[in-house]
Amino acid sequence: MLDIKDIYKDYKNFLNKEITLQGWIRNHRKQKEFGFIDFNDGTYLKNLQVVYDNSLSNFDDISKMRIGSAVTVKGILIESTGKQDFELKALDVILEGDCDDNYPLQAKGRPTREFLREIAYLRPRTNLFNAVFRVRSVAAYAIHKYFQDNGYVYFHAPLITSSDCEGAGEMFQVTTLDLERIAKSGNVDYSKDFFNKQTSLTVSGQLQAETFALAYKKTYTFGPTFRAENSNTKTHASEFWMIEPEIAFCDLEGDMDIMEDMLKYVVKYVLDNCKAEMEFFDSFVEKGLLDKLNKLINSKFVRIDHEEVIKILKEADVKWEFEPEYGEDIAKEHEKYITEYFNGPVFIKNWPKDIKAFYMKQNPDGKTVAAVDLEVPGAGELMGGSEREADYNKLITRMDELKMDKKSLDWYLNLRKYGGCVHSGFGMGFERLLIYLTGVDNIRDVIPYYRTPGNCDY
Amino acid sequence: MLDIKDIYKDYKNFLNKEITLQGWIRNHRKQKEFGFIDFNDGTYLKNLQVVYDNSLSNFDDISKMRIGSAVTVKGILIESTGKQDFELKALDVILEGDCDDNYPLQAKGRPTREFLREIAYLRPRTNLFNAVFRVRSVAAYAIHKYFQDNGYVYFHAPLITSSDCEGAGEMFQVTTLDLERIAKSGNVDYSKDFFNKQTSLTVSGQLQAETFALAYKKTYTFGPTFRAENSNTKTHASEFWMIEPEIAFCDLEGDMDIMEDMLKYVVKYVLDNCKAEMEFFDSFVEKGLLDKLNKLINSKFVRIDHEEVIKILKEADVKWEFEPEYGEDIAKEHEKYITEYFNGPVFIKNWPKDIKAFYMKQNPDGKTVAAVDLEVPGAGELMGGSEREADYNKLITRMDELKMDKKSLDWYLNLRKYGGCVHSGFGMGFERLLIYLTGVDNIRDVIPYYRTPGNCDY
Repeated sequence: MLDIKDIYKDYKNFLNKEITLQGWIRNHRKQKEFGFIDFNDGTYLKNLQVVYDNSLSNFDDISKMRIGSAVTVKGILIESTGKQDFELKALDVILEGDCDDNYPLQAKGRPTREFLREIAYLRPRTNLFNAVFRVRSVAAYAIHKYFQDNGYVYFHAPLITSSDCEGAGEMFQVTTLDLERIAKSGNVDYSKDFFNKQTSLTVSGQLQAETFALAYKKTYTFGPTFRAENSNTKTHASEFWMIEPEIAFCDLEGDMDIMEDMLKYVVKYVLDNCKAEMEFFDSFVEKGLLDKLNKLINSKFVRIDHEEVIKILKEADVKWEFEPEYGEDIAKEHEKYITEYFNGPVFIKNWPKDIKAFYMKQNPDGKTVAAVDLEVPGAGELMGGSEREADYNKLITRMDELKMDKKSLDWYLNLRKYGGCVHSGFGMGFERLLIYLTGVDNIRDVIPYYRTPGNCDY
Repeated sequence: MLDIKDIYKDYKNFLNKEITLQGWIRNHRKQKEFGFIDFNDGTYLKNLQVVYDNSLSNFDDISKMRIGSAVTVKGILIESTGKQDFELKALDVILEGDCDDNYPLQAKGRPTREFLREIAYLRPRTNLFNAVFRVRSVAAYAIHKYFQDNGYVYFHAPLITSSDCEGAGEMFQVTTLDLERIAKSGNVDYSKDFFNKQTSLTVSGQLQAETFALAYKKTYTFGPTFRAENSNTKTHASEFWMIEPEIAFCDLEGDMDIMEDMLKYVVKYVLDNCKAEMEFFDSFVEKGLLDKLNKLINSKFVRIDHEEVIKILKEADVKWEFEPEYGEDIAKEHEKYITEYFNGPVFIKNWPKDIKAFYMKQNPDGKTVAAVDLEVPGAGELMGGSEREADYNKLITRMDELKMDKKSLDWYLNLRKYGGCVHSGFGMGFERLLIYLTGVDNIRDVIPYYRTPGNCDY
């Protein structure tokens, strides 16, 4: 069956021809002798205007059709005298599924994003969310296409896990134990749990992805990860999707090359393949979005040491809320300043060891690790990566310093004894990318059904 | 950097040229004056033979290099006088990462799949698993490519959920409640849980996907799903990936068209893009695999009612373990018989209502639903789908009959009041497809890190 998208691609192909479409009534303006239906079948952001008049035998029925209804429309595509290039002159409109009057998406007024979160199952029918979730789909595909075209093997990291990647994030427990029975018996027996031990939802697939990098040379994950942090911010969700590439025989410089190349590819792919959606965001969500993204594609990302960044921040004529310090993390205000200072994306590398994860390669200075964060104008940190510590003894020593359990990670340590090599990787939160791509600034609005503390509907 | 894959693609490009590769020693045969290294960098199934001799200044060091070690090899690609077309005459071999003598993947003897499961983190370094997980990656991409090229929107279904899709599968509970504290206090208070209520891991994203189908017309999921069933069979895992397309304005016949088209596309894509791997499986795992798959691509799938199938089974001159019955499910032996009877894939449709899920469209006969299973020779059921019940009242009545909770599915029911239409969808277990594609018959061997009752390593 024909899609609206096909018509928008080249409407002249269809001019003065009879076509049939199926979709929904987005808006309906009725007059005595004719009427206009804003018709949309979901395949394209823009509606098709359907014009009908009282020469049709079922004119009365059509004019009673309600917003939200599913319909089949038959008609001739003609050039329009109105705003749009073309419209459909109806030969028939057939009701496929009626819509109640209490349908929340009436044409009057623009519903707020907060209201639409309450009816999340209907919001992809609005222009904004239709565009957001189409871009989500296309961006996801662009990521797969980039890695597959470049010889990476897609790795499905396990979701239920008995190992805690970084000790960094709070984890959700996964169990089949009967909690009511635990309450009654006063006893928790993990040997009776489904996996005969305590298990959780993963916070990262990186450690497991390293096993694939050391077999395939290049691998990437793209799957859900979970954090049980009780934080209610615009950028945190309890369930989100993450991309974690991992590359053998690749150092930190090589890692940054890939991060930059991949990001530019994905941004360009979305700009090329979601023109209507990206123009919509540029007009109605974030003025200047297209300029921002086109600038990113054409810029050379700056690469600078964390220490140098602190120096720049300290020398800046700015009253900081948080004073920048050598050896410490940087705050949102610092991220903002540094991308403005360089007027573009900045890789900040060689971070203080003590604020970074155990698996990062220790630099010869004894103070820093070969880690990198990518900061982009307007969004802050978009990706983080590192060269991984390939030295078995250094890794062991670091884990001991951090009082980590080495036993449950023996397989990870063994990678350093069984043909280990220089290798690197990075992680990108998919929703963070979408926020950057669309200008929609709340993570709840770029995930179809978001999970945050206290929210688990659908 | 150059990959072995590039050389195998067209080795004549590289003949008599100096090249550098990085990878691992798979096998090493040393003689007094020269030696052979089976070298592999993970980008291709086949090894590259590296020949070195005592004209090299570090001949002694090279000859001591152990199996599993990471190395950089420099050399000239030359035509070979041996079995292979070409080999690398080494100019230098540099040790990048040594490998312990206790490395489990020594060249001697072929390790069993059971043994390799114990060292799952190393098994992608073997030919069999290298091939399996590369096919897994390529098949996943083929699925995305098929749906994206055909205008489907990729939908990320939520993993943590408060609704139970079918009431069909046992679910894992997700919680941040402290179980030890529950044991002590004798009280379970879900208002204190992370989401302020009881939540689980999803068994299917279908119901949520329907909300996207009724907005975008065509959508698909591809993500993890979970079952807490305590079953230890070759085809059941507790965590697996599933593909669930959902299409508006599509009836059961259209659904079958898509199932057939998609399957053929994916099989063909894998055959075209994993030639070496598929030949390997055909030779060493399942004789006749390539014939089986090529036949599938070129066959027209049979479409037949469940009732007719039972009739055929009853008339068959076979002593059944389970007697086929009208109104009942069919057993593995029946699936096998019917695909042999038709000598190809068979869609069995219009199943007895009482053995199928509540959301399936009730047929006018009052006894059957518009459901379909695809049975393929050698693997049994590969996909299952149905037209969805679009009639609000019929759906309500059926849910009442099954004593289901309508309140938590009010959004799902509303889809029938807000412009509902004929729509259909299906589900395909990704690992089941991989078993069919590779001939590897245990689900534990087609998932990188499998989760089954009592097993949650890595």
